[in-house]
Amino acid sequence: MKNSFGNNIILTIFGESHGNSVGFVLDGIPAGISVNEENIKSLLDLRRPSGSISTARAENDEFTVHSGVFNGYTCGTPICVTIRNADARSKDYTEKERLARPSHADYTAHVKYRGYEDYRGGGHFSGRITSAIVAAGGILIPALNKKGIYIGTHLKSVAGVSDREFLDIEKDIKNLADARFAVLDISKKDEMEAKINEARANGDSVGGVLETAIVGLEAGVGEPWFDTLEGMISHAVFSVPAVKGIEFGAGFALCDMLGSQANDAITVTNGRTETKTNNSGGINGGISNGMPIIFRTAIKPTPTIAKEQETINYVNNENAVISASGRHDPCIAHRARIVLDCISALVVADALATRQGTDWLAL
Amino acid sequence: MKNSFGNNIILTIFGESHGNSVGFVLDGIPAGISVNEENIKSLLDLRRPSGSISTARAENDEFTVHSGVFNGYTCGTPICVTIRNADARSKDYTEKERLARPSHADYTAHVKYRGYEDYRGGGHFSGRITSAIVAAGGILIPALNKKGIYIGTHLKSVAGVSDREFLDIEKDIKNLADARFAVLDISKKDEMEAKINEARANGDSVGGVLETAIVGLEAGVGEPWFDTLEGMISHAVFSVPAVKGIEFGAGFALCDMLGSQANDAITVTNGRTETKTNNSGGINGGISNGMPIIFRTAIKPTPTIAKEQETINYVNNENAVISASGRHDPCIAHRARIVLDCISALVVADALATRQGTDWLAL
Amino acid sequence: MKNSFGNNIILTIFGESHGNSVGFVLDGIPAGISVNEENIKSLLDLRRPSGSISTARAENDEFTVHSGVFNGYTCGTPICVTIRNADARSKDYTEKERLARPSHADYTAHVKYRGYEDYRGGGHFSGRITSAIVAAGGILIPALNKKGIYIGTHLKSVAGVSDREFLDIEKDIKNLADARFAVLDISKKDEMEAKINEARANGDSVGGVLETAIVGLEAGVGEPWFDTLEGMISHAVFSVPAVKGIEFGAGFALCDMLGSQANDAITVTNGRTETKTNNSGGINGGISNGMPIIFRTAIKPTPTIAKEQETINYVNNENAVISASGRHDPCIAHRARIVLDCISALVVADALATRQGTDWLAL
Amino acid sequence: MKNSFGNNIILTIFGESHGNSVGFVLDGIPAGISVNEENIKSLLDLRRPSGSISTARAENDEFTVHSGVFNGYTCGTPICVTIRNADARSKDYTEKERLARPSHADYTAHVKYRGYEDYRGGGHFSGRITSAIVAAGGILIPALNKKGIYIGTHLKSVAGVSDREFLDIEKDIKNLADARFAVLDISKKDEMEAKINEARANGDSVGGVLETAIVGLEAGVGEPWFDTLEGMISHAVFSVPAVKGIEFGAGFALCDMLGSQANDAITVTNGRTETKTNNSGGINGGISNGMPIIFRTAIKPTPTIAKEQETINYVNNENAVISASGRHDPCIAHRARIVLDCISALVVADALATRQGTDWLAL
Repeated sequence: MKNSFGNNIILTIFGESHGNSVGFVLDGIPAGISVNEENIKSLLDLRRPSGSISTARAENDEFTVHSGVFNGYTCGTPICVTIRNADARSKDYTEKERLARPSHADYTAHVKYRGYEDYRGGGHFSGRITSAIVAAGGILIPALNKKGIYIGTHLKSVAGVSDREFLDIEKDIKNLADARFAVLDISKKDEMEAKINEARANGDSVGGVLETAIVGLEAGVGEPWFDTLEGMISHAVFSVPAVKGIEFGAGFALCDMLGSQANDAITVTNGRTETKTNNSGGINGGISNGMPIIFRTAIKPTPTIAKEQETINYVNNENAVISASGRHDPCIAHRARIVLDCISALVVADALATRQGTDWLAL
Repeated sequence: MKNSFGNNIILTIFGESHGNSVGFVLDGIPAGISVNEENIKSLLDLRRPSGSISTARAENDEFTVHSGVFNGYTCGTPICVTIRNADARSKDYTEKERLARPSHADYTAHVKYRGYEDYRGGGHFSGRITSAIVAAGGILIPALNKKGIYIGTHLKSVAGVSDREFLDIEKDIKNLADARFAVLDISKKDEMEAKINEARANGDSVGGVLETAIVGLEAGVGEPWFDTLEGMISHAVFSVPAVKGIEFGAGFALCDMLGSQANDAITVTNGRTETKTNNSGGINGGISNGMPIIFRTAIKPTPTIAKEQETINYVNNENAVISASGRHDPCIAHRARIVLDCISALVVADALATRQGTDWLAL
Repeated sequence: MKNSFGNNIILTIFGESHGNSVGFVLDGIPAGISVNEENIKSLLDLRRPSGSISTARAENDEFTVHSGVFNGYTCGTPICVTIRNADARSKDYTEKERLARPSHADYTAHVKYRGYEDYRGGGHFSGRITSAIVAAGGILIPALNKKGIYIGTHLKSVAGVSDREFLDIEKDIKNLADARFAVLDISKKDEMEAKINEARANGDSVGGVLETAIVGLEAGVGEPWFDTLEGMISHAVFSVPAVKGIEFGAGFALCDMLGSQANDAITVTNGRTETKTNNSGGINGGISNGMPIIFRTAIKPTPTIAKEQETINYVNNENAVISASGRHDPCIAHRARIVLDCISALVVADALATRQGTDWLAL
Repeated sequence: MKNSFGNNIILTIFGESHGNSVGFVLDGIPAGISVNEENIKSLLDLRRPSGSISTARAENDEFTVHSGVFNGYTCGTPICVTIRNADARSKDYTEKERLARPSHADYTAHVKYRGYEDYRGGGHFSGRITSAIVAAGGILIPALNKKGIYIGTHLKSVAGVSDREFLDIEKDIKNLADARFAVLDISKKDEMEAKINEARANGDSVGGVLETAIVGLEAGVGEPWFDTLEGMISHAVFSVPAVKGIEFGAGFALCDMLGSQANDAITVTNGRTETKTNNSGGINGGISNGMPIIFRTAIKPTPTIAKEQETINYVNNENAVISASGRHDPCIAHRARIVLDCISALVVADALATRQGTDWLAL
C-alpha cells in the first residue's frame, strides 16, 4: 500500500504543501466514538509553528469533516477530513523549482515522478502533510485515553541539550499533553530554544531525539512476523519527514551489554507481572509485555537552510549553489513530537482492533 | 497482514523451532527466474551454527521445493519450500515449559496464545524460523545480482569490538559473500570471537551492530507515505529476533549535527548525479537517490543464557530462578547478518516489482 | 480492507447521502496523466437523475480536487476529490428514522453500527456514494482510452424489455459513451421508460440486467488465484447497491451446455489469436485471452417504494407498515451503468499497473 | 494479493497439478482450535474422484502438517499443510504441451508466464489445487460448526436435471455433510449420473449449478464498500476452476420482478427479526441480516474433452485439432461442491474474525 497504513484501522493521507488541501481518510473506526472538533483543533495547535524557533508560515488549519461523523459520534464509515492550505506563497519557491535542496526530496521526487511532481514547498514531501496525521490523532487519542492508554513524546535532546528521562511515565505524559515545547525538565527549554535560534541566526538548522512512551497497553498485543509492534511503529514513524533512526528500550546501547545486563528480570507482585528493568521497551518477540512501550526517534536537522550549499539544477542537470530563501523551520523536532504521538496512536489502535474486534475501541 | 510481507512480491513464513518444518511461500515472483538449489544451500550454510561461537544444535537444513519451480525456472506461481527440523531435542526444554526466559518471548507468547503456544525451543519466535527467510533469499539474491544490485552485511561491532567502515562498497560486499564470519577487517575476527567465547564461558551472551549496504539500486524507488524504503526495511528487519534498533545513513549521529554538516551536497559529474557525502544513507523522502543504501541494525545479546536470572513460572504465575540448560547461541549477530541480506533483498525486489511491473525481475 | 479496492491502483470512497460530502482518494495513479475536470463532469452528468424515470433529488455534483493534480496532470500522489451534498432534505426521512425499508440496508446498518449509523437517506449505503466512483472514472477512463481500452455498459433488459446484443463492440461502446439512457437499439428506449413510469405510477419499482464490454485488453492480464479478473470485477461490482448477480460470457447458460458446445474454438489468423465464439467472456483461468471481456450484472428493483409493505420499527423492534415518501428512483439500472463502467476501469487499470509497473498508464 | 485471500484469516495456496505437492498456509487462525486430521481426510475424501463420473486419476491425498498445530490444537501461528501429488502421469500430457485446450487456461497461462508455465496437467490452473482449499476447510468448518454456523452445497442442477430447493436448511445441510453426490432429492442422483456418463461416453462433458446455504450467521457481518459479503464470496468463488456466474438470493430472477414482489417483508416474532421471503439471500447492503445466506454458482462443462476441437499449437502459433487423451472429469460440479463449502467457510470465518477479534473463533 502506498499512502495508507494499518490493517484494520487504516489511515490514508493526501495533499501537497501548496495544493488545495491536505487531509486524511480514516477507515475501520467503529461507530459510536465521540468526535469533538476541539480535540482535533488543540492537537493541530500543538503542531503549529510557534515564534522564532519555527517557520513563519502561518496556517490556521481550518478543517472540514466531510464524512463518517453523525450527531457527534463516528457512524462506522470512513472519516474524511480536509485541511485548507491557506498561507501557501508559491512565489517564495520559484528558485527551488530548479535547484534540489541537499538531503531533501526534491531530486528523488523529480526522478520518481518524471518531472510531474508538485515541487512547490516540498509538495507531498512537506512536513505540512503531517497535519493530516495529527488531525486523525484528534479522534484516536481521546478514544485510547478512555481505554486507559496514554501516549506522550518529549524532546530527549535538541542540538546536544538533553532532557531528563521519563520517571512517573503516566504523570509525565499527562504533563506533556498541552506543552507547546515538550520537555520534562522545563529548565531545558530555554537552553534548547537558544540553540535553535542560534542555528537560525547562522542560516543553519539543528536536529534532536524524540522519546515516546505508551502506557496502559495490555500484554499480548502485536504479532511475531512481520507485524511486530516495533515493525509497525517503525514503518509508520519513518514516513515522518526527517526521521533517520529508531530504537526501542535500551536500543543501540544493548549492543555493548552482556545478556545478563540486558535481560529484564521478571517478577510477579500481587498477581501483576512486571519486569524490574525495561531494556526491552515493553516489547518481547514483537508483542507487548505490559510494561510501558518506549522508543526513541532520530530527527535530523531540517535540510532547508539559508546557508549556501552545493547542489544541482535537476531540470538541466547542472551544478549550482543553493541558499534557501523561503520560510522554513530551523528545527522540526519540537513540532514533530505530536506527530509521533498520533502515529503511535494509530498503530496501537489498529493492533488492538485486530485483537479485540473492530468495535472494541467504542465499547 | 501477519506472517506475510511485501506488496507485490510477498513472503509468507511459517514454522516452529521443534515442529515438523519451517518454510516459506514466496508469491509474486515472475516466471523465468533461474532457481539453483545450490544457491539456497550455500546461503543456508552461512546461517548455520559454526563452532564454539554458536549453538550446538546441528541442523542440516534439508529442504523440499513443493511448488513454483519447473525445469529449473520459476513458473510464475507461488514457491513453497519447507525445511525439516531434524535436530530438535524437546527434552532439553522441559524446564522452560514453565519458566519464562527474561527478555525472550516466552511470557508474551503465553499471554497472546492463551496457553496454546508451542513453547518448545521458542516455537515460532525462534531464530530457527529465519532459515526460511534465508532460503527465500537463495532465490531473490541471485536474481538481484543479475540486475546489478548487490547486498552485503558486516559485523560493524561485536561486544564493543569494531570492524572498519565500508570503503569500496561493491567490492566489500562481494568479499563478504562467502564469509562465515562477516568482517571487512579480517584482523577483527579473532578479537570478536574471543569476546563471544568469553561470554559463553561465563554463561553469558553478547550483542552487536550489523551494517548493511545495498548498491546498484537506481534512484526513484520507494514511496513517500507510508512505504518509504526506510519504513519497509525497518518493518521487515524488526521481525528478526534480537533486533532493537535501526538507523539509516548517519542515523542517530545526525541529531547532534547542524544542517550544514548533515546535508549531502549534490553534484553532477559526467551526467551522473551523486552526493559528496552519504549521511542520508541513499534515501531522501523515503525514495532511493542512487547512492548506496546504508543502514545499521542493533542486535541485543541473546536472551537465553546459562547464568541464573530472576523470572516467573508463567503457568502458575510464581516467582522463580532460571538458568538455561538447552543449546543456545552466545551471540546471534554473526548468524543474523545473512538474514538481513535476505530480508533486504525482499524489500528491494518488491519495491522494484511495484515500480517496474511484476515481470521486470525476470526480463 | 474496507472502503478501499485495488492492489496497486487503490480507490477509497467515503461519504453519507446527507452528510457534508461524498468523495474518493485514488492512490497509485502515476504522475503525468492528464486530468480534465470536464471529463469528470460529463461522467457525473451521465449518473445524474433524469426526468420522471429517476429521483427528484437534484444534485449539481459540484466537486473539489484537493490533491494529487498539478498543472493539469496527476503528480503521482493520492488524488482526493469531494462532491458536496447540496440537495439533501433530511426532513423527508424522519419516518424512515424508525422504519426499516424491506430489502434495503436500514436494518443491517442498524445492527452493524449499533444505532450510531447515519440513517438519513440510506447514509453510506445510498446510491449517492457511487458518484465518487464515477468521479474517479473521469480520470481513469480517459487514461485507458488513450491505451486503446474501451469500456461500455448497456441496459440488456429493463422490466423484461430486452436490448439487442453487442455486435461491433468497440463501435457500440463509443456510441454508448454519451447516452443518457444506454441502449444499443434506440427503439427500446421508449418501451423501457414506459415500464419504469408505469412502476412509478403504481408506487413500485423495476430492475434490469446490465451488460458490460471491455475491448482492447491484451491477453495475459489477471491472476489464477485469487485475483482472477472475474473475482476482482465481481468483488467490486457487488458493492454497487442493488446488484445481486453477475455472470461472465455465456454465464449461467453454460450450465446446460455440453463441453463441445461451450468451449470456444481457438484460431490463428494472420498471427492474431482469437476464439470463434466468446462463451468464456474473454477470460480463461482468471486471465484475459485477448477477446472482449463480457459480463452481465443483475440489478434488482429499487427497494424504496411508495407501496405499503410490512416491516419493523428497528428502534423499538415492533412490527409496522412502511410506505416510502421521500424522493427515490423507480429504477436504478439506467443510472448504474456508468458506475459499472467506472468500476471496471478501476479493476482493469489496477491489473495492468500490477503487470506493467506503476508508471505504465502514464507512459 | 495474488494467491492469498482474506483480511484477518488469510489463506494462501500453492502447487501445480504435476509438481511435488499442492498445499496451503492458513494464517490468522487463533490458538486453541482443535485440529483433527480425520476431519481433513474426510473432506478431502468428498472431493476425490469417484467412479465413472470422475477422472481416473487416483490421488490418496496424503498430507503433512508442517506447522501451526501443537498437541492437537492450533498454536496461533500459520498452519502449513502440503498434499503430495502421487498419481501424476506427465506423459499423458505430452501432446497438450503444444496444443491449447479450448476454454482452458493453457493459452492464457502461456502468454502470462511467457513460456515458463508448468503446463503439465493444467499446472497451477488445475482443479487439483482445490484440494488445498478443502484441506483448509477441514480446520475451518468444524470450528464454525462449534459456533452454530453450518454450510452446505447441493447440485441444484446437472446437465438440465434439477434437484429440489432447500427446505429445512440446517437439516438439509447436515444431510449433505457426508454425501459423495450431494443432492437433496436422492432420486435425482441416478438421472444426473446417467447424464454425466452419457456425456463421457460421447467424449463430451456437462456443467451444472451449485447452490450453497450458510445458516447460523448472525446479523451485522460484512462491509458496505468494498468487502460486502457478496463481494468477498464471489471474489473467492470465481477462483474455483469452471465457475462463470454467481447470484445471491433470487439473483437474476429479481431483474424481472417489481420491487413489491422482490422486497422481503420484515417481521418481529418473539423478539426475533426475520424476513418472510429471502429474495435477498440473507444479505442487505453487503451485510448479513440473520437469514440464511443463499447463493448459486454456475459451473461450466469441463473444458477438457475427448471430442475433436479446433485450436492452436500455442508454441508455434499454428492452427491445429485437439482431442484430449489424458484422464479428465466429464463433470466437475459434484466434486466442486465441497470446495464451495470450504471457501465459504473461509469468507465467513474471516468476516467474523474482523468483527469479533482474532481469538473469537477459538473462545
